[in-house]
Order: sequence, then C-alpha cells, then structure tokens
Amino acid sequence: MASVLRNCCSYRTLERRLPILAWLPHYSFQWLRMDLLAGVTVGLTVVPQALAYAEIAGLPIQNILGLRDIPRQFFWEVYYTFHNIAETRVGDLVLGLVCTLLLVLLKMMKKQLPEKSDQLPLLNRVCSNIVSFTGTARNAVVVVAASLVAYCFESQDQHMFTLTGKTAQGLPPFQLPAFSDSLSNGTVCFTEMLQNFGAGLAVVPLVGFLESIAIAKAFASQNNYRIDPNQELIAIGSSNILGSFLSSYPVTGSFGRTAVNSQTGVCSPAGGIATGAVVLLSLAFLTPLFFYIPKAALAAVIICAVSSVFDLRIVATLWRVKKLDLLPFLISFLGCFWEIQYGILAGIALSGIILFFNIARPEIKIANYGTVIVQLQSGLNFPAVEHVCDQLYQRVLEAANPPHSVILDCLHVSSIDYTTVNGLRELIQTFQQKRVCLLFSNFQPKVLSILTSAQIEGLRHFDSTEAALQHLHGDDYTDDLDESEKPLLHRNDGFSS
Amino acid sequence: MASVLRNCCSYRTLERRLPILAWLPHYSFQWLRMDLLAGVTVGLTVVPQALAYAEIAGLPIQNILGLRDIPRQFFWEVYYTFHNIAETRVGDLVLGLVCTLLLVLLKMMKKQLPEKSDQLPLLNRVCSNIVSFTGTARNAVVVVAASLVAYCFESQDQHMFTLTGKTAQGLPPFQLPAFSDSLSNGTVCFTEMLQNFGAGLAVVPLVGFLESIAIAKAFASQNNYRIDPNQELIAIGSSNILGSFLSSYPVTGSFGRTAVNSQTGVCSPAGGIATGAVVLLSLAFLTPLFFYIPKAALAAVIICAVSSVFDLRIVATLWRVKKLDLLPFLISFLGCFWEIQYGILAGIALSGIILFFNIARPEIKIANYGTVIVQLQSGLNFPAVEHVCDQLYQRVLEAANPPHSVILDCLHVSSIDYTTVNGLRELIQTFQQKRVCLLFSNFQPKVLSILTSAQIEGLRHFDSTEAALQHLHGDDYTDDLDESEKPLLHRNDGFSS
Repeated sequence: MASVLRNCCSYRTLERRLPILAWLPHYSFQWLRMDLLAGVTVGLTVVPQALAYAEIAGLPIQNILGLRDIPRQFFWEVYYTFHNIAETRVGDLVLGLVCTLLLVLLKMMKKQLPEKSDQLPLLNRVCSNIVSFTGTARNAVVVVAASLVAYCFESQDQHMFTLTGKTAQGLPPFQLPAFSDSLSNGTVCFTEMLQNFGAGLAVVPLVGFLESIAIAKAFASQNNYRIDPNQELIAIGSSNILGSFLSSYPVTGSFGRTAVNSQTGVCSPAGGIATGAVVLLSLAFLTPLFFYIPKAALAAVIICAVSSVFDLRIVATLWRVKKLDLLPFLISFLGCFWEIQYGILAGIALSGIILFFNIARPEIKIANYGTVIVQLQSGLNFPAVEHVCDQLYQRVLEAANPPHSVILDCLHVSSIDYTTVNGLRELIQTFQQKRVCLLFSNFQPKVLSILTSAQIEGLRHFDSTEAALQHLHGDDYTDDLDESEKPLLHRNDGFSS
Repeated sequence: MASVLRNCCSYRTLERRLPILAWLPHYSFQWLRMDLLAGVTVGLTVVPQALAYAEIAGLPIQNILGLRDIPRQFFWEVYYTFHNIAETRVGDLVLGLVCTLLLVLLKMMKKQLPEKSDQLPLLNRVCSNIVSFTGTARNAVVVVAASLVAYCFESQDQHMFTLTGKTAQGLPPFQLPAFSDSLSNGTVCFTEMLQNFGAGLAVVPLVGFLESIAIAKAFASQNNYRIDPNQELIAIGSSNILGSFLSSYPVTGSFGRTAVNSQTGVCSPAGGIATGAVVLLSLAFLTPLFFYIPKAALAAVIICAVSSVFDLRIVATLWRVKKLDLLPFLISFLGCFWEIQYGILAGIALSGIILFFNIARPEIKIANYGTVIVQLQSGLNFPAVEHVCDQLYQRVLEAANPPHSVILDCLHVSSIDYTTVNGLRELIQTFQQKRVCLLFSNFQPKVLSILTSAQIEGLRHFDSTEAALQHLHGDDYTDDLDESEKPLLHRNDGFSS
C-alpha cells in the first residue's frame, strides 16, 4: 500500500500528469522562437476554420449553394438540396467554387516547393517563403480575400452573397454550462437534453478520443517519441470540462492543425499558448470584421479540410490484404449516410461479430496416418466446443471407415473454461462408448492443470503428438515414416481442413 | 443447384424433419407396451404439475402461505411476504408443509429401491412395484390425497384451505391467439403487449430452447444417441405455434418429465401420444374435481419440482476447476433475484466480456537466450495488437539492457486482420528506428500470405524459431546449446510471463 502511494505521488508520476514540469526547465530562446512561429501559423489556420465549423454545427452543408430550409438526415438533405437547386444564389455558388479552387491551388503550390530553399538565389528564396506562408495560412488568406470582395459589393448596396452577419463580440463569458434549454415551446430539462443526444452521447466522445489518440500516435511515430493514452484522455477531458465554462464546442485533436504545427517546427506545448493568443485577440478585436465573411468562403474551408480525410486507397488495400475487413468498412461508410453514430456502431458491432465467429468456428484440420490426427488451428473457448465436438462426431466417428484411434492436437489451446471442460468430458465419453481410443496432445501446462482439477475420467494426455503416436504404435513408428509423412506439429502437409 | 435441391428433398432429409417416418416402420407390440406405460406415468406427473404451473403463471409464490396482494419483483415479494406473514392461513401452511414432506419422502423411497427387483421374493417384488409406482406418480398421489382431505373439510363447511376453485371445463377451444387484450382501463394493442414483454421476448424463448437442447443432449448422451438441434427447434417452434391456437402456455422440454419417461422405458415418441391422451381425458372429465385441489398442494408440487434443478455442488466444482467462471455464475444468480431476464442477460454479457478480455490481452512470454524470444501464447486479433506492441516496447526496447535482436514467435496466430497488419508494420518501423533486429517465426501459411500481400517493408520471417536463431548466430548456434537451453516451441522452460 505504502509503495503504491509512493509510486502514485512520485515526481516522475507528477511529471507524467503535468508534462509542463518536464519541458519548462529545459526551455530555451530557440524553442520560444520556433513555438511562436508555429503557434501563430496554427492560429491563422484555426480562426477561419473555427468560424466555419461554428456555422456547420448550427447549419447543414447548404452553407456553398446558399439554400435554406433543408432537414438534417443525409438522404433527405441530398434530396432537398437537389430539389431546391434552382434557388441557388449565383453569387454564393461562384464565390464558393472560386474559394475552393484557390485553396486547392495554394495547397498544391505548397506541396511543389523544394524542401530546402537555403541553396537557392535570394529572389527565389523570398518567393518560396511567400508561397510557403500563403500555403500554410491559406484559410486565412482566402477568407480575408473573400471578405474584401464581399465588402466591396456590400458598400455599393449589392447583396450578392450570404454573409456571416453579426457575431457575439468580445471574449465569451465565464459561466456554468447550461443544464436546461429554453425553447419557444417550453423548457428542455437536463435528462431530455441527454436523451436527445441518444447514441451520440457515447459515440461522439469515443470517436473524438480515438481520433485524437490516432493523430497523437501518428506524429509520435513520425517524430520518434511515445505517447501515454491515459495522459491524452486526461488532457482532452480537462480541456473540455474547462471549455464548457467558456461556451466552447467540444475539442479533440485535429490532424490538419497538428500537421501545420509539426511542419513549422513546434518544440513544446508552448506553441499552443501562441495559438490561443491569436484566437483570443481575434475574438476581442476582429469580430466586427467577421460580419463581412461570406458563408460560401467558410464552406470552402471546411470542404477542403474534410476532403483530405477521405482516402479511397484503403478500399484497394483492404481488397488486396483482407477482403473480409471490407465488410465492416463498407457498413460503417454506408451507415454514416443514415446517421454517423449508427454507422460507427454498426461497424463496431460487425467487427465484433467477425471476431466472435472466428472464436466460435475454429478451423479444424484432419489428417489420417492410420491413426487420425485432428489439429485445432486456434483456441477452444465455450462458443466453439459444441461445434468442434460435432465436427469430430461427423468427420471421424461417423466416417465411412471409423479409425481405431484419434489424437486431438491442442497445441493452440491457450485457455479453457468450464463449459469447454464439460464438452471434452462428453467427447471422451462418446468416444469410449464407440470404442475409439481418443488421446490428447500438446495441452499447455496451465490448461492441463485445469483439466486435471476437473478429474475427467478417461482423459489421456501426451506432451507431443509424436509421443501419442509412439504410445499407440510402438517406439519405432514415427522413425519408420518418411520425413514427408511425419505429422509435424506446425506443418500443414497432408492435412485437409 | 440441382444437387442441393435433390439433397433437400431426399427421403433421408424428410426422415430427419419428420422423425415418425424413421420409427413407425419398425414399430412393435413390445414398444407399444413400454410407450403406453411410460406415457401414462408421465401423464400422471404432468396433470398436477400443469395445474400448479397454471396457478404460478397468474400468481406469485405466496401460493403455500395463503397470502394475497403481493407485488411481482423478487425483493418486494420477499419483503411483503414477511411483512404479511401474520396473515398466513394455518390450514394452508400445515397442508403445504405436509405435502412437501410427503413428496420428498416418496422421492427418497423411490431412490432407495434396488435397481432390479426380479430376483426378490414375490411379496417384496409387489411392495417394490407399489413404492416405485407411488414414487413416480407422487405428484398425482399427493394432490389427490390433499384434495380428498380438503373435500372432507369443505363438506362440513369448514373453509380451512385456499382451493383452486372453478376451472374452465372441457377441452380448450381452437381459436386464433389473442392479438389484443381488453382490460378494465382500455384495450392493450399488440405492440403494447410486445413492449410489456420487454427483454423477456428474446430471453424466454432463448432460455426455453437452450434448456430443451441441454435436456435432449443429456439424455441422448446417457442413452447413446445423437440429437439434431435444428430438428428440436423445429419441433418446439411448431408445438408452440399450434399450442397458441389452443390457449396453451409456451412449452419447452422438461428435465423431470423426460427423466420419468426415460426411467419407465419409453421406446419412441409415441409415448407422448399416451401422455397427451391422459391430459386430454383429465381436461374433458376431471375438471369438476379440480375445484377441491388445495393451492398449497400445488405449491408443494412446484417447490419440489424446481428445487431439484437447484444444484449447489456446481459452486464447489467451479471453485476447484476455474474460479473465474464463478463470476458469470454468481452475477446471473444474483441478477435473477432482481428480474430473471436481467440475470441471464448479465451472465451472457459477462461471459462475453471475459472471452473478449482473453482476446484483447493475450499472454506474452519472454525468454532471453542472448537473443530475446517473445512467444505469443494465443492469437493476435485487432483488440490485442496495441497491447502486444506496447508490451514489446516496454519490456524489450525500453529494458535496462536492450537486446540486439528479437524473435517474435507467432505459432499460435491463426488469423490476422488489417488492424493487426498495420500494428505489425508500425512495430517493425519502431524496431528499425531503435536499430534492434526484429525477426518473426512460425507464422501459419494463411497468415503469412496476408502479410505478404500487405507488402510490409522490413518483415523478415522464418519457418521456425531455430531457423531464425541460426540466421542470427550461425548454423552451429542451436547445436551448441544444452538440450535444456533450447528454446523449444511448445516448451515453457525459461520463459517468464
């Protein structure tokens, strides 16, 4: 107990839970320079993106065509979107397409840059740096440019675009999160709010956390350090609890922004402080300017951010490597068109069923060397024992020419439960009644001790299949066989499955 | 297609689905005699039991104390039963206890009989047969005796016992089952009826079927024949569909009655016809007599029938054989006190979790022979890959004295999925970055072909751990080791888990 406590409260544990204690003592001016640069760059990406996502959380994707009155479910969304397509505002459509095109072009330009520009002539270096900065802060650049265009039209009283309009000015107030919601038709209490979330209440945090961990792992692997999932969970959890007092949307890790952070050479979590400062300054001083941001520009930012997550090559890879794994993939994918949480739950359930099926129907290989040798290709758990016994009855006992002796090779049985023990007891009884000698081989010591304590009458076990064969046929039997005829334990020659 | 059809409609398939085609052609007079005896005996057991269960389906277990107005949930049942215990009718209590005692005594007497009475003197043989018959038909004997006692009291206008009272006379009418229910406070429609069943709608048929199959298997094993679970399902399903037109309660197999059937030497399903005849005759002609059956006697019949199912020795067995399996047992047992279906569902869920935990946390054994050899003790599926990789990082790469080379022995890996493939890819990358040589051994051909198609860079596989060791240390390495030092594949010497 004392050692647990000491371990719990050691400086190393504290360092793990408050990582600032680990990096602050080593902090240098060089780190500060890099963290500032990275932090501000991320800030320029995050402000327009945050504005765009704030739009999407309230409104569906009609945010680029300028359509209104569209319901939430995907099928209906698609239907109504096409149904009302005639109402499309030409200004929104043109601006949205131009912004999307610009974002794609800027991204591609940045990709085309040579990795090291130090050896280039001065002019090329300056150009390269401009392209690199514009490419990284492309969201901010496109949104600012679109806003300027919108401002010009508005100042001449030409209402071409749907604008963001008035947004709440200044920093959000620090207050308890709302535990009830007042609507026009009465108050929604806390339990009703929870019920409205439905399965999302479990799925959204789960997906958010899994995504964050996946991102953290990807960058940890790329930059050669390791992460502690528990610490990530604590960090995301406390951020969200604190955030809820500041009217924040739930936060998780972002692949795109982490990539920007990493590429601009962030050295410590202090980069996040610089990003935070940019966000707070925007909220404090720039919100009046947000009025003129066209919604079509924000929609373009989101479409470009999300489309990079979409990777069709995985289908080809799964087809090549393991076709069965396409099934949960496709079910999740199609289910998400209905509702995202149903898609994810269906994928999880199907993966579980496939896993369970593998356990319930272990592969059995049977070879006949005078004595029949039956190899279980994987473990033997309670969902499988019935099937395995039935297979033995059908394929061995009820065969046209039943053998005198059978060896059941249990090399791969790593754990055993009481139902399995009872199944084996019944199997042994049935073989005794049919007067067929049944020997077991290769049980792991742990499994054998469970079987011994169950006192199964007639259980005969040998340390190896060879020993069992020698017991049946005498010492010379396996020596007399050709090398190719030897029923080696992990060879598959001669076995039919 | 044609062969499937031919197979489907062959006489053998027809025989399997209509077993009467198999046994009727061989039917003999000897079989008829045995079937009649067994059928009538079962009938004498089933009529009082059916009456008793009909009571219990409508009323809870207060039926032996003569209490009323007790709610349904177990905790509350116990509380109210004891709360209202002062209202106990002395007549019911005494009769109930006497009937229970009689039933137990008759059962014990029957058990004490010698198995073969043929060699005994005539008088002993007659006595033995009387005891045997009374023991077998003990339910009928006790109920008839109790009814006679009740009749005597009632005829002298002394209302000592709660009686069964008027029961519907004659055979039940053949009619469509009710798809709605009229209550005093309105009509309950079909969907509401279904909702009222709740989880029971799935659990009751499931448990009923599982119980029937378990009973069928137990007697099949004892009498040396095999059953076809599909055929049992068809038989139970069609009985229940037909039964629903005759106001029947749902039927499943009964352990006690099957035991009576088996002990009295039933030869074919024709025994069931004799039992059915006894039941129909009772319904047609004996229902007026049912008026005088005391409910306390029926309660005693149920308590004795149900208590034989209760077997505490299983706890000792599970403790001895596998303590972990006590957990789902106890959770089911305790959950059933809340509501039976919750108990069963909790037991199923916990068994699933234990199974899943075994998959997600495979045992890993690590041995150091200069080269570190890591043995996976069971399969490697997607829930486990993260854990296994982390264990390798922590226990091998971050060890005080990291090795130059590691062999991962995958003998027990019988199937692999895409998540596992990706995990192994990352594992290989990490080992490459740390400049530790990672070799794989003993992959099964099926698994190896998946890994090959995934084109994992740096995957090096050897057919056996010895081959991998020889590759690392030269041909003579394993020969130079002591016999006891050889890292044999399915030996556990030298491995720490």
